[in-house]
Amino acid sequence: MKKIDPKIFVDDIFLLHNKTAQKLYHDFAKVLPIIDYHSHLDPTILAENKPFRNLTTLWLSGDHYKWRAMRTLGVTEKFITGQASDEEKFFAWANCIPQTLRNPLFHWTQLELKRTFGITAFLNADTAQDIYTKCNQLLQDKKYLPQSFLKNDNVELLGTTDDPCDDLLHHQFLAQQQKDTHVIPSFRPDKIFQIDQREAFILYVNKLSVTSQIQITDIDSLLQALHKRVDYFHANGCRIADHGLTQMPRKENFTSALEQEFKTFLNQKENTFSNPSAFQYFVLHTLAKLYHQKKWVQQFHLGPIRNNNSRLLQQLGADCGVDSIGDGQHIHHLSVFLNDLDKTNQLAKTILYNINPADNEAFASMTGNFNDGTTKGKIQFGAAWWFMDQKEGIEKHLNALSSISIISTFVGMTTDSRSFLSFSRHEYFRRILCNLFGKEMEEGVLPYDMAWIGKILQQICYHNAKNYFLNDKPKVLQIFLCHVMWSFPILFS
Amino acid sequence: MKKIDPKIFVDDIFLLHNKTAQKLYHDFAKVLPIIDYHSHLDPTILAENKPFRNLTTLWLSGDHYKWRAMRTLGVTEKFITGQASDEEKFFAWANCIPQTLRNPLFHWTQLELKRTFGITAFLNADTAQDIYTKCNQLLQDKKYLPQSFLKNDNVELLGTTDDPCDDLLHHQFLAQQQKDTHVIPSFRPDKIFQIDQREAFILYVNKLSVTSQIQITDIDSLLQALHKRVDYFHANGCRIADHGLTQMPRKENFTSALEQEFKTFLNQKENTFSNPSAFQYFVLHTLAKLYHQKKWVQQFHLGPIRNNNSRLLQQLGADCGVDSIGDGQHIHHLSVFLNDLDKTNQLAKTILYNINPADNEAFASMTGNFNDGTTKGKIQFGAAWWFMDQKEGIEKHLNALSSISIISTFVGMTTDSRSFLSFSRHEYFRRILCNLFGKEMEEGVLPYDMAWIGKILQQICYHNAKNYFLNDKPKVLQIFLCHVMWSFPILFS
Amino acid sequence: MKKIDPKIFVDDIFLLHNKTAQKLYHDFAKVLPIIDYHSHLDPTILAENKPFRNLTTLWLSGDHYKWRAMRTLGVTEKFITGQASDEEKFFAWANCIPQTLRNPLFHWTQLELKRTFGITAFLNADTAQDIYTKCNQLLQDKKYLPQSFLKNDNVELLGTTDDPCDDLLHHQFLAQQQKDTHVIPSFRPDKIFQIDQREAFILYVNKLSVTSQIQITDIDSLLQALHKRVDYFHANGCRIADHGLTQMPRKENFTSALEQEFKTFLNQKENTFSNPSAFQYFVLHTLAKLYHQKKWVQQFHLGPIRNNNSRLLQQLGADCGVDSIGDGQHIHHLSVFLNDLDKTNQLAKTILYNINPADNEAFASMTGNFNDGTTKGKIQFGAAWWFMDQKEGIEKHLNALSSISIISTFVGMTTDSRSFLSFSRHEYFRRILCNLFGKEMEEGVLPYDMAWIGKILQQICYHNAKNYFLNDKPKVLQIFLCHVMWSFPILFS
Repeated sequence: MKKIDPKIFVDDIFLLHNKTAQKLYHDFAKVLPIIDYHSHLDPTILAENKPFRNLTTLWLSGDHYKWRAMRTLGVTEKFITGQASDEEKFFAWANCIPQTLRNPLFHWTQLELKRTFGITAFLNADTAQDIYTKCNQLLQDKKYLPQSFLKNDNVELLGTTDDPCDDLLHHQFLAQQQKDTHVIPSFRPDKIFQIDQREAFILYVNKLSVTSQIQITDIDSLLQALHKRVDYFHANGCRIADHGLTQMPRKENFTSALEQEFKTFLNQKENTFSNPSAFQYFVLHTLAKLYHQKKWVQQFHLGPIRNNNSRLLQQLGADCGVDSIGDGQHIHHLSVFLNDLDKTNQLAKTILYNINPADNEAFASMTGNFNDGTTKGKIQFGAAWWFMDQKEGIEKHLNALSSISIISTFVGMTTDSRSFLSFSRHEYFRRILCNLFGKEMEEGVLPYDMAWIGKILQQICYHNAKNYFLNDKPKVLQIFLCHVMWSFPILFS
Repeated sequence: MKKIDPKIFVDDIFLLHNKTAQKLYHDFAKVLPIIDYHSHLDPTILAENKPFRNLTTLWLSGDHYKWRAMRTLGVTEKFITGQASDEEKFFAWANCIPQTLRNPLFHWTQLELKRTFGITAFLNADTAQDIYTKCNQLLQDKKYLPQSFLKNDNVELLGTTDDPCDDLLHHQFLAQQQKDTHVIPSFRPDKIFQIDQREAFILYVNKLSVTSQIQITDIDSLLQALHKRVDYFHANGCRIADHGLTQMPRKENFTSALEQEFKTFLNQKENTFSNPSAFQYFVLHTLAKLYHQKKWVQQFHLGPIRNNNSRLLQQLGADCGVDSIGDGQHIHHLSVFLNDLDKTNQLAKTILYNINPADNEAFASMTGNFNDGTTKGKIQFGAAWWFMDQKEGIEKHLNALSSISIISTFVGMTTDSRSFLSFSRHEYFRRILCNLFGKEMEEGVLPYDMAWIGKILQQICYHNAKNYFLNDKPKVLQIFLCHVMWSFPILFS
Repeated sequence: MKKIDPKIFVDDIFLLHNKTAQKLYHDFAKVLPIIDYHSHLDPTILAENKPFRNLTTLWLSGDHYKWRAMRTLGVTEKFITGQASDEEKFFAWANCIPQTLRNPLFHWTQLELKRTFGITAFLNADTAQDIYTKCNQLLQDKKYLPQSFLKNDNVELLGTTDDPCDDLLHHQFLAQQQKDTHVIPSFRPDKIFQIDQREAFILYVNKLSVTSQIQITDIDSLLQALHKRVDYFHANGCRIADHGLTQMPRKENFTSALEQEFKTFLNQKENTFSNPSAFQYFVLHTLAKLYHQKKWVQQFHLGPIRNNNSRLLQQLGADCGVDSIGDGQHIHHLSVFLNDLDKTNQLAKTILYNINPADNEAFASMTGNFNDGTTKGKIQFGAAWWFMDQKEGIEKHLNALSSISIISTFVGMTTDSRSFLSFSRHEYFRRILCNLFGKEMEEGVLPYDMAWIGKILQQICYHNAKNYFLNDKPKVLQIFLCHVMWSFPILFS
C-alpha cells in the first residue's frame, strides 16, 4: 500500500506503482518539453492573451466532458450551460466532483488544480469556496495569461485546428510574438464534406469563394480554391491536415455525369446530391495527394456519431456533449483509400485515430500495411482520443500499439483539447506510459535496462513527434534556433 | 499468497485481494439488502411456495448455463435434459464441475453451496453423493421453500419478467402475502414484435385480444390492447418494462399504406408483412411514450442471436442453451430511437444492456447523450448480463462504465436469472466491485478515504436502485412502511 | 522485483510471475510433447532435410512479421526483401531488435536464440556479428537440419497446410522416414472459393482437373474432383481440413439456373459469376459434409483482409506482410452454416479462429451452440492466431474461452507458422497459460490444488489435442506404437 499522506493525492508517485516506474518518469519522461500537435485551443484567445475572468470561464465554459458528467449526475441545464452565475456553476461542478471517482475528470481535476494552482486539497462542496477564491485571484496574475500556460507547461509546439476559411491572422501574430512555443495551424476542411446538408454546404462554398477569391462554380474551381487555401496555410506554417469523419468515404468514381450534377447542385436549388461518397472520396483523395506533395502529416479522426440529442443541439449548438462512440465498420474503406494513394507513391505521413476501442487492433494492424521505409513510423496508430483519453483507454491503446505495431515509433500524446489546463494530460499520459514499462521491467517481461528503456520512452514522449512533425521546416528550425539562443544566450554570444 | 485453509474456498476474503477491499466489502457492501430489479424467477413457484423435490430440480432443471457446459464437456443429452433420473443428472453435473475451472459456473456452484447449504467441500464425483443427500434433506425444511430464499438473501425488491397476457394473479397473491420482499411484475411484450413469424404472431394477437377484451383488427386496436395491459400491470405494481431484441428496430414511417396492409395481414392469410421494422418501431415508440407517462423504467436487452441450433430448439424449445452473442451494429438505431423520444420530452428512465462486450464503450457513451437533469443516472449502462455476468465481464463493464460514464450513478447488479440460488450473484458482484475499488485505493489511483468510497459503493449496491425504481411508488412505500413496522415493531407501538 | 541476472532475460522463470506459476510450468507443462496441428512449414524442406544456408535464410526469409516491423522502423525494402546480402539483411534486423520492445518479435527472438542456439545475449547492433557467426556455424551441424528442429522440440504431430492439387509425395516420404514426428497434410482448398477472380479460378480448375483426372465441366464434376482429392488426402494420413476466409459465405440457394451459369462460366469467357456466395456456400457445405463422413477436423480461419498494399503485392506476391485485421460481421453466417450441418447430423469437429480480438466473446459463445455430447470440446474456439499470437492476445483469448466456454476442453496452441524456430511459441504459450492459472491460485480465485490444476493444464497443452486429432487413426496409432517401442524398448522386448 502506498505510504504517503493520503491528502496529497497527486504526489510524485501518482500512477507510478513501483520504483522502476517512478525512476523512468522522473529521470526520463518528466523533463521533456511538450509537443501538442493536435489541439482545439482558440488562437484568438492565445493572441489576445487577456486574463481569464474566473475559474468557471477557464475551466467549465466549453468543456463538454464536464457537461456530460453533470447531466449524468442529475444537474439541471441551468447550472451547466444555462442562466446560473459563474459562481453557481462552479459550485454545482464542485459538488459533482466527489461522485466522479474512476472517471478521468476526477484525476484531471486534481492534476490541473495541483499543476496550475498548487492546490492539493480535494475539490468538493466544502473546499469549493476557498478554491474558487484562490484560483480567481491567481488568474489575475500574468503567470496565468493564456500564453503563460504554454510557457509554464513547456509547450514547444502547439497545433491548433483551423478551418480553410480562417485568415490565420492570429497565427501570424503569434509567430512574431511567441518565443517559447511554436503555434501552427492545422488544415481541417470538414465542412466541405458535408454535402448532404445542402444549405450549410452552399453557404460554406460561398464563404470559401470569398476567402480564396476563386469563384466556385464546379468541382475544378472548388479544388482550386482548396488548393489555394492549402498554399496559404502552408505559407503560414501549417504542416498538418486533419479530418473528422464518421467513416472514411467509400470509393466511387466521380463520373462526368456527377461532375455535371455537382455544377447544377451548386448553382440551382436542388435538394440533394445523389452520390455524396463519390464526391467525398474524390475531394479527399485530391487533398491527400496535395498533403503528400507539401510533405504534410494527414490525420484522420474516425468514428464518432455526433449530435445525437437534437434538443440540446438546437439549444446549444454543436460540441455540447451529446456526441458518442460509433460502432461502424472502417477497415475496408481505410484500406482502399490508403492503397489508392500508396499505389502512386502519394501517401503522406498519416495518423489514424479510432474512437471505439473495439477497433484498436484492426486500426493498429492497418498502419503496418503502408510503411515504406521512408520515415520511421510513417503510418501512425494515433493516441487514445476523446472518450478513450483516460487511464484504461490509454493503456489499451498502448498495448494494442505495442503488440501489433512497434511502440518505439509512436509520436505520442496530443491533447485534442479546448482547455488551457489540458497540457497536464501529457503528464498523465507519461505517468501511465512509464508505469506500464516499469511494471514489465520489474516482472522481467522487459529487460531491466534503464538506459535502453528510458531512451525509448523519451522517443515516445518527445523525439519521435519532433522528428515526425518538424523534420522539413526551415522556418520552424529558425524559430527553434531563436528559442535556443534565447534559452542559452551565452552559447551564441 | 492467500494464507488460509485451501479447503474453504469461498471464505471471507474470497475475491478480495487486499485489506482495503476486504474492509469495503465487509463494512459497507455485504450488509445491504438486495434489489433484484430484473429476474426470470417464476411467480407461480414463488406463490405456491412448495418445497423443491431435490437439488436437481432446484439447480439443474431449466439452467441452460449448466446445460451448455455439460454439452461442451461431452455429456450426452440424456444426462442433461433427457430421460436420466434426477440423481443421474446430478452426478453427471458433479462430475463436470472440476473441469469448469475459470468458468463462472465453478464459482457460482461453490458460492451457492456455501451460502445456501453451508457446504464448503468442492463438488466433484467423490463428494457428489454426500452433497446430494445433505441438500435434499435440507430442501425439505421450511427454510428452503421458494419464498425463504428471498428472505434468507435479504431481497427487498424482486422484479419478475411477465408477458402482457399474464394475469398477474400470483403477483396479487404475493403482494398480500410477502412481507419482506416486494415482488413486482415487469412488462415484457417481446412476442408482439415477432411479426416475421406470422403464425405465432397471429396466435399471440388472438391471445392478447382475449386477455385485453379488445378485438384487435388493426394497429389502433392493437395499441389499445397493449395500453390496457400496461394499465393493468401498473395497477398491479409494475413499474418496469423490458424488451429483448436482437437489434433496436430501424426507424421507418408506419405509413397509412402499411396500416392498411397490417389490417389485411391480421385478417387474411398473408405470408409476410412487408416492413417489419416500420411496425416494430411504431409499436415500440408508442409503448415507450406510455412508459414515460407512467413514470416506468424501460429496459432494453440488445444483441443476442437466439436459437442457433434448430435441432435442439425443436427438441427442447427456446432457452435451451443454444443462444449466442451477436456482432451486429446498434449505435445508430439506438441514437435515433432515444432522440425521437427525448425530442418530445417523452424519454423514460432507460437501461441499455449489451450482450457483446466489444460494444461496452459505445453503449456507455450513448447513455451520456440523453441525461437531462431530471434524475441522477437517468440513462443507465445496464449491468454485465448473461454471457458477460462473470468476473472478467463484470470488471470490463464496471471499467467502461467508470471511464466513459459516472459509476457512482449506477443502479448496480441484477441477476436476470431463473434460479432461486442466484441471489448469491449479488455477493459475487459486490466482492468484485469492492476489489476493484480496494485495489485502486491501495495503489493511490483512488483517494484513501473509506467513508467517501464506502458511501459510493453503497449507492451502487443498493441506494441508487432504490431511488431509481422506487421513488414514485406510494403503494410500495406503504408496503415498506409495513416492512419497517414489522421489523422494528417497537418504533411504531 | 525479479532477482536474477538481468542479462539472462529468458530464464527459468520468464513470464512466470509467482512460485505457483513456476511450479505449474516446470512440473506439468514443460515436459509434454508438442502437437502442432496447424502450421505452414514446407514439407519439401522437411523431406529434403538440407542444412539452412545461414541464419537469414532460416529466420528472415519469408517471415512477414519481421518484414512489417522493419518497414515500420523505417528500413528500406532493399534490406528486407531486396538486393542486400544475407548478412546485410541480418544486421538490418539486428539493428531493429532493441526498438521492438513490447512486440512479440522481441520475446520470440530472445526465446528462439536461447532454445535453438543457447544464446542468452540480447540481439542488437553490437552483438549481431558474434551471433550471426555462431549461429551460422551451428547451422552446419546435423542437429540443425530441418527434421532435427522437430526432434529437438519434441514435436509429436505436425500438421502442414496443403493445396488439394499437391501430390503429397513429400508426406509419403516423411511418413516412411520420420520416427519421432508424425507429419500429416491438411486439406486447404482456398483457391476453389476465389470465383470472383475468374482467370486464376479457371487456371486452378484446370489444374484440379489434371490432378484429379476428372474433367471439370460443371458443379458435379468439380465436387467429384474435390471428393477424389479428399479421398487421396485421407489415404495419405490427412485428418484435418482448413479454410481461410474473410467471411463465412452467406447461405443462398445454388439454383439450377446458377448450375447452368456455372457451366457456361467454366467453358466460355465470361467476366463474372453472378452469385459467388451461392457457389461458395454450396461447395463449402458439400465439403464439410464430406469432412464429417471422414471424421476429419475442420478449421476456419476467419476475418483477415489480405493484400492491402497492391504495390508490395505486385512486387513480392502474397504473404508479404500487408495483410490486416478485418472488422466484418461473422456471427450470423457462422450460425447458419453450422446449424445447416448439425440439422442433418453432419457437423464435423470444428475449430473456429477469429482474427479480430473484438470478436473473441462472440466466437467463444458460438462454439457452445453445437456441442452434442459426442466429443469433449467438439466445437473449439481456436487459439489466438497471427496478430493475436502474443502475450496480451493469448491472455485475452484464454480469458474469453474460460469465461464463455470451458477452457479445460481446449486443444491448445498451434503455431500456424512458416518458421522452423516457431515451436518455441508452444513454450511461450505454456508459460503464459501457467502464469494465468498460477496467479489465480495464489489469489484464491482458483483452488490451490496442484494435482487438479496441473492435470487440466496438461490436457490443454497436450492430451486434449491428442484425443481430438488422433482418436480414430489406426495408422497414427501404429506409428505411435513404434514411437513408444522406440522410446521404451525394454517394455516391448
